[in-house]
Amino acid sequence: MSGNTFGTLFAVTNFGESHGPAIGCVIDGCPPGMALSEADIQPDLERRRPGTSRYVTQRNEPDTVQILSGVYEGRTTGTPIALLIANTNQRSKDYGAIAQQFRPGHADYTYWKKYGLRDPRGGGRSSARLTAPMVAAGAVAKKWLAQQYGTRLRGCMTQLGEIEIPFEGWEHVPNNPFFAPMADVSPLQTYMEALRKSGDSCGARLRVTATGVPVGLGEPLFDKLDADIAYAMMGINAVKGVEIGAGFACVAQRGSTHGDAITPAGFASNNAGGVLGGISTGQDIEVSLAIKPTSSILIARPSVDVDNRPVQVITAGRHDPCVGLRATPIAEAMLALVLIDHALRLRAQCGDRGGDNTARA
Amino acid sequence: MSGNTFGTLFAVTNFGESHGPAIGCVIDGCPPGMALSEADIQPDLERRRPGTSRYVTQRNEPDTVQILSGVYEGRTTGTPIALLIANTNQRSKDYGAIAQQFRPGHADYTYWKKYGLRDPRGGGRSSARLTAPMVAAGAVAKKWLAQQYGTRLRGCMTQLGEIEIPFEGWEHVPNNPFFAPMADVSPLQTYMEALRKSGDSCGARLRVTATGVPVGLGEPLFDKLDADIAYAMMGINAVKGVEIGAGFACVAQRGSTHGDAITPAGFASNNAGGVLGGISTGQDIEVSLAIKPTSSILIARPSVDVDNRPVQVITAGRHDPCVGLRATPIAEAMLALVLIDHALRLRAQCGDRGGDNTARA
Amino acid sequence: MSGNTFGTLFAVTNFGESHGPAIGCVIDGCPPGMALSEADIQPDLERRRPGTSRYVTQRNEPDTVQILSGVYEGRTTGTPIALLIANTNQRSKDYGAIAQQFRPGHADYTYWKKYGLRDPRGGGRSSARLTAPMVAAGAVAKKWLAQQYGTRLRGCMTQLGEIEIPFEGWEHVPNNPFFAPMADVSPLQTYMEALRKSGDSCGARLRVTATGVPVGLGEPLFDKLDADIAYAMMGINAVKGVEIGAGFACVAQRGSTHGDAITPAGFASNNAGGVLGGISTGQDIEVSLAIKPTSSILIARPSVDVDNRPVQVITAGRHDPCVGLRATPIAEAMLALVLIDHALRLRAQCGDRGGDNTARA
Amino acid sequence: MSGNTFGTLFAVTNFGESHGPAIGCVIDGCPPGMALSEADIQPDLERRRPGTSRYVTQRNEPDTVQILSGVYEGRTTGTPIALLIANTNQRSKDYGAIAQQFRPGHADYTYWKKYGLRDPRGGGRSSARLTAPMVAAGAVAKKWLAQQYGTRLRGCMTQLGEIEIPFEGWEHVPNNPFFAPMADVSPLQTYMEALRKSGDSCGARLRVTATGVPVGLGEPLFDKLDADIAYAMMGINAVKGVEIGAGFACVAQRGSTHGDAITPAGFASNNAGGVLGGISTGQDIEVSLAIKPTSSILIARPSVDVDNRPVQVITAGRHDPCVGLRATPIAEAMLALVLIDHALRLRAQCGDRGGDNTARA
Repeated sequence: MSGNTFGTLFAVTNFGESHGPAIGCVIDGCPPGMALSEADIQPDLERRRPGTSRYVTQRNEPDTVQILSGVYEGRTTGTPIALLIANTNQRSKDYGAIAQQFRPGHADYTYWKKYGLRDPRGGGRSSARLTAPMVAAGAVAKKWLAQQYGTRLRGCMTQLGEIEIPFEGWEHVPNNPFFAPMADVSPLQTYMEALRKSGDSCGARLRVTATGVPVGLGEPLFDKLDADIAYAMMGINAVKGVEIGAGFACVAQRGSTHGDAITPAGFASNNAGGVLGGISTGQDIEVSLAIKPTSSILIARPSVDVDNRPVQVITAGRHDPCVGLRATPIAEAMLALVLIDHALRLRAQCGDRGGDNTARA
Repeated sequence: MSGNTFGTLFAVTNFGESHGPAIGCVIDGCPPGMALSEADIQPDLERRRPGTSRYVTQRNEPDTVQILSGVYEGRTTGTPIALLIANTNQRSKDYGAIAQQFRPGHADYTYWKKYGLRDPRGGGRSSARLTAPMVAAGAVAKKWLAQQYGTRLRGCMTQLGEIEIPFEGWEHVPNNPFFAPMADVSPLQTYMEALRKSGDSCGARLRVTATGVPVGLGEPLFDKLDADIAYAMMGINAVKGVEIGAGFACVAQRGSTHGDAITPAGFASNNAGGVLGGISTGQDIEVSLAIKPTSSILIARPSVDVDNRPVQVITAGRHDPCVGLRATPIAEAMLALVLIDHALRLRAQCGDRGGDNTARA
Repeated sequence: MSGNTFGTLFAVTNFGESHGPAIGCVIDGCPPGMALSEADIQPDLERRRPGTSRYVTQRNEPDTVQILSGVYEGRTTGTPIALLIANTNQRSKDYGAIAQQFRPGHADYTYWKKYGLRDPRGGGRSSARLTAPMVAAGAVAKKWLAQQYGTRLRGCMTQLGEIEIPFEGWEHVPNNPFFAPMADVSPLQTYMEALRKSGDSCGARLRVTATGVPVGLGEPLFDKLDADIAYAMMGINAVKGVEIGAGFACVAQRGSTHGDAITPAGFASNNAGGVLGGISTGQDIEVSLAIKPTSSILIARPSVDVDNRPVQVITAGRHDPCVGLRATPIAEAMLALVLIDHALRLRAQCGDRGGDNTARA
Repeated sequence: MSGNTFGTLFAVTNFGESHGPAIGCVIDGCPPGMALSEADIQPDLERRRPGTSRYVTQRNEPDTVQILSGVYEGRTTGTPIALLIANTNQRSKDYGAIAQQFRPGHADYTYWKKYGLRDPRGGGRSSARLTAPMVAAGAVAKKWLAQQYGTRLRGCMTQLGEIEIPFEGWEHVPNNPFFAPMADVSPLQTYMEALRKSGDSCGARLRVTATGVPVGLGEPLFDKLDADIAYAMMGINAVKGVEIGAGFACVAQRGSTHGDAITPAGFASNNAGGVLGGISTGQDIEVSLAIKPTSSILIARPSVDVDNRPVQVITAGRHDPCVGLRATPIAEAMLALVLIDHALRLRAQCGDRGGDNTARA
């Protein structure tokens, strides 16, 4: 138990390093009887995959997922679903130079201090590559949630560096490499070109949302739905901030504004972001997250080596100048994993009709 | 397992309702041999206690803690420490009127929908009163952390409604009822008086920090230190946003700025907020959180009753117009609980000298 | 997390010491809406209570349980149910003499070595008194199981020291202080009188069974129903052996005998003890356990003190000459706790109709 | 969380089915810095491997383990260690006939009833083949325990069917296919030949022991060392009974006999089996377990099919006539996993010197 398992009832155990033979995960607790094949999972992996545009790392891997267990004749059996993704494009020589140095803003330093050794190849365990198995597990969760409740997960970029991105519509998101919800992404292209030339990196802000969420997900005190979402999102590499609903804007709101009025037809607004008292209201879940700039950049930065001697670190190799560009499918997946876990928890404590008092009466 | 236990190795199980006979918690996993008495815990409870200023709820309870177990002849024995706080000032009649209605922005609605019934007296389980046992447990954690590492937890308010509060020094925090780090709090007083007269409520922004944190706390993938902090903070009643270090400001930063330079004497800045790759760096842990305005206000709001008929809800009774005013000790306590849990986890996997590679060599 | 919480979804956290102010537990995860009051719990506590016959410890305590939370207007709310039992009859002076010595066969030695200190009053945390909160929690579980499935838990003594006790019928069990399923218990009385005069203690063998158990409880690999039962039973003070169904007799059986034949009307025998592949079959759960003789006896035994000097230990004070005499309600309670936990787990993964494939089709 | 993860701090997540592409496990929480390669693991897998004598299943697989992650330059990094074992010899056609029938005494019935479907190929998830990854994980645990404390795990068969096996010495165990601790195993050979000809199967009794165990392992109340051992052993396929130390013999013992006398030089006997009050004493851990006869036999047995129609079941295919023959390395591995988990838990709560009060003073 060193924090490599996510979830309590739909539990995903992640393993692997960036440049080892393979990465993957084991899903424990998936409901039985659901149709499942690699074809349900691969599309989301494609959305996260590196090498798909000039704005992301050129490490180009197929990221082909293989189901090793838990599915028989095309249906989940209720036993663990092991998913394997081979690492096929490891250029470890890129990393040799920095094995004895710590990149500013990178996990190099803390891994070394915690464990006394680290796998420096491609960031080892700290690589964002380890989000691929979560995207795969999230695809399984998404399928079940869609079948059970009609839940739909979506995400988009809302800010790239200093540029705020207007929301023009979800339909634009799949049409550009930024997951931007707008038609003309040329300002973002121009921005990224300049950034790449400068050898620097930038941050991003994402929005992720779930519609069709049943009432009643989330535990009152600690495993609040929003607390678990915050945990899930802050656990994504490079995330430094998480908001639910109105988020930090709530500080300057009045109670008479913030509290969403309720009418017989439903809620009149969604400052709550779909969660009250830690429990889902049935409204859309609305989450916002801040992703820091990549620490692996071409600009020299002051640091130390493992013997605490001063060095200037430049990170060559293939890196994303904005990790936020590939993070949208990851955030969707993590949200899906939180939701399915709480859906099973609700069912455990309150039965199939839990989360809908009206239906029960 | 309905989310009422916080932590894995230093595990705190919370129980109680606002107007039941008592609230409390059971701490499991406390290291043995530490001197402990109620006198170590009561001061932090006093800091959180209601009725201490005109700006907070006038429900005035002594919140006296009693240790029921786990301490023998003044020392922890390693067995569960049960802490009990009697409820002495329940005026349940205040709440009768709203037992069949849902306050906008309140957990009334979701509890009802999830469980099919709820304890409406004083908010029942959803009351912020349930943070008192966490403050008590946090005091135990703080004592151990201070003895073991010299860790110190501090918090303050950084914004009240629209008013940003300048940081003039930690020494001011205990001298005013706002936990404000400034000498002259008259603007805050004026603001709160006006708010109270209007019958409305407002939000707040808090900062909480830990100094003297060892390197190596936090797990790489999911139980990252910052992910667990986000989980802890978002789990506090009314919190809608959490930031670590630079937080949302990182979006517009460059990698060359955000990544904290390292020198042989230590880090040159702290955009990371003391966490890299989910593991503590040894720098101060820096957390910021947004607290929404109280939902229990004197202004009529549109809502529905349990039969989905439209009603206008006005919440009489004793309520905090800004729950953020009493949240600083809570946030400190939750941070302390995260830190002690990870300190024990580090010790488990890496031994006593874990988190200090230099010492190990 | 030092092992004071039992169960995953119906989780019971136990606290207290034999001679502290109180003992108790917190039940987390109880389904909402069940009628519950102290009157549902007290009868089982009476069955376990000391001082009820001349064959058990004369420490006479009412063991009155108080519900502190989780119940509103007579129904469970789904939030934690805290149960408190005050300690009213602590004669700590009895134990002073042995605070620096280790009773052979007692936890004195290991607590001291593990924690570096121990609460010696009445055995502190290692006292069998700490099973009282489990009996209380078990009563809650029993009620839910009975309502949901018609499950019934029963137990009896099958051997006292060397005396094998014939099974004449469940109806005899409540009529004697041995929980013996036979009409005439005079041989057991004679045996116990002689034992008490000798100052010695003896072991016992118990049987505990559950009828009306649904098919499908238990996880395939590790949290097998029988594995969790073994864990629960071996965790009861003084238990040294556990059997399911045929138990150790299976060693000399043939597969053609052991494997219970199945007919359209059901199973033809129950060597399995109601569990196949770790999952309940719907037959009765059959468990047998061995309870060792009490270590606190009036006969001098060689031991050492805390400075490793040889001593002769005689344990005065009030002790059960056969702890097995009061263990039947405890074993029933622990079995009930295992069953409810797995019932909720089944519901989580497979839905309300899980565990009944026929009904699902 | 469907019970496929074993352990809390040294947590092993198992996946796979008998006839899927691969089986394996993920070890989370292994201490960093330990030398580890496949060569440390393979020997124990060889001891468990099928096809090695005429008395076990002739399914002959190399069971070659591959380390996929968690090891860098020959040392554990503290991140998850994924172990993969390919399935190379699946003859699924053997099982087609019984996919719609339930073998008496087999998990066929309960899987079907619980999940509504099952993977019938080779027993699917219920196959004893799934113990191979546990043997692999156990080898990692054994290595760490040996280095840290000099702990040594050993096991042997003590009864085969009706034949009690005398203990002549550990040195004989590796020299025969029965793991029998005696020189001349011809009686066992004769017995097994006759059994095989009869088409039937038999049970076995095993003993497993650990020497060099530190004092202080185990939690007082629920996660007692012996309770966790009972859970681990009863979780092994086909186990129906578990004893610690004197086991069921304690029932007829007196307290004056059972309680092991203590001298300044140590304990004078070991009825406790190395555990008092749930905590290790430093003596050898002594465990005994009963393994039922294989349910897959060549003798026709009455059963039903999935439509509840009566059938006669004969199980062709390759099966062990006594699964106990290959269970010794499995029991050793499970014991090792319990011990390492508690060793890390002890270290977490009490620090490196926990479990040795003398050293601490």
